Amino acid sequence: MSLKLYVDRMSQPSRAIVLFCKVNGIAFEEVKIELAKGQHRTPEFQAINPMKKVPAMVDGTFMLFESHAILIYLASVSPGIPEHWYPSDVLRRAKINSVLDWHHSNLRHGAFTFIFNSTIAPLLGLPLNLRAAAEGEKVLLTSLAHIESYWLEESGRFLVGSERPSIADLSLVCEIMQLMVLNDEDRNRILGPYKKVLKWIEDTKDATSPHFDEVHDVLNQVKEKLQKLPSAGPNVVADVSL
Amino acid sequence: MSLKLYVDRMSQPSRAIVLFCKVNGIAFEEVKIELAKGQHRTPEFQAINPMKKVPAMVDGTFMLFESHAILIYLASVSPGIPEHWYPSDVLRRAKINSVLDWHHSNLRHGAFTFIFNSTIAPLLGLPLNLRAAAEGEKVLLTSLAHIESYWLEESGRFLVGSERPSIADLSLVCEIMQLMVLNDEDRNRILGPYKKVLKWIEDTKDATSPHFDEVHDVLNQVKEKLQKLPSAGPNVVADVSL
Repeated sequence: MSLKLYVDRMSQPSRAIVLFCKVNGIAFEEVKIELAKGQHRTPEFQAINPMKKVPAMVDGTFMLFESHAILIYLASVSPGIPEHWYPSDVLRRAKINSVLDWHHSNLRHGAFTFIFNSTIAPLLGLPLNLRAAAEGEKVLLTSLAHIESYWLEESGRFLVGSERPSIADLSLVCEIMQLMVLNDEDRNRILGPYKKVLKWIEDTKDATSPHFDEVHDVLNQVKEKLQKLPSAGPNVVADVSL
Repeated sequence: MSLKLYVDRMSQPSRAIVLFCKVNGIAFEEVKIELAKGQHRTPEFQAINPMKKVPAMVDGTFMLFESHAILIYLASVSPGIPEHWYPSDVLRRAKINSVLDWHHSNLRHGAFTFIFNSTIAPLLGLPLNLRAAAEGEKVLLTSLAHIESYWLEESGRFLVGSERPSIADLSLVCEIMQLMVLNDEDRNRILGPYKKVLKWIEDTKDATSPHFDEVHDVLNQVKEKLQKLPSAGPNVVADVSL
């Protein structure tokens, strides 16, 4: 098998890529890079991705990182991928590129910053950072409001008015699914007001069943691990990064 | 003329798009949206981009925002655009998508956060934020180091080993040019160590002459305005956003 995906399913863009391959029957070898064990910092992995981030991909001798670039590549080179995942129509493709680009500094930035600093950091031996978490939550809430009021248009069940999911739906929904590691109160407070977002998550889950649940099962394990951690007093630190 | 670009040349992604059009002889109407006057918050502009950001584009009736999506769209639909700007070869295109995606959370995030909070904010009536500036500078320096050591490979003068510039070169160089508004000491401290980056900026300027200087002339005006501002004592504030 020539396609290798270097992933940690704890990472939301890793899940998006694994899910895309499973839904579309793309054969791949899943190479686990455990972030909690620092495996993204080994010389072997840095030879594949010098940025020390998952996911990364090697297809034969071709190396690539950045999850959206990987999704676009796989949608382009894999035979028989249905058109809706990354339409060749230039206008539809432009809209999907727009939401993918928007994602980086909005939903992705907000959700990652909030969840990492409010919840996940102790799993990687780092302290919580409530200031950073608060800043991230603000960006996250604004992003969810924009998805609800703009990206999920009236005309379709998926992003940018589509009737069937695209790679953008996978990327953004996998990001939001990270909220499942929060406690119920926080999760409901954040997601509860966004009824269209909640329905879209269910629609994306249905459209990618049964792989969606399998790929996200890791979040239950993360939640269990978090519940076993001693309740740590929050530290305010200025520098927290993976 | 059916193509309208809604831009403020103070915005680096706005400049990248204007530069791409000028270099490639794409006819467009430049609609100025002055950020300093809050024109990105008017109902008229929000009907074009509900995210209240420049640049945005209207081509006939088709509306689009996010600068990379706009660059890809224009490279795809405009007749006679040379192949090197956004290659159709799937491997070369994937590498350009990778650097464009990487840009968002790295060079873009670092440079914007640093320059805005250390220098530009008073032009928009906002205080400086030295904590945010310091965090941004760290990301900026790491990003420049990655461009120097990885993205500018030995084999080509431009990003990802290309002999001719792509839309990624325009996007990233326009970002770095924002450093021209800093005082000489800060700019030299930040850019000085990166000799390949400095040569790449000159190569991009040469490849897009004379439009490069014309499009960046705004930065001289910004620098003059900044020099006329009363020297403000820096405030540390938690919430600074455009």
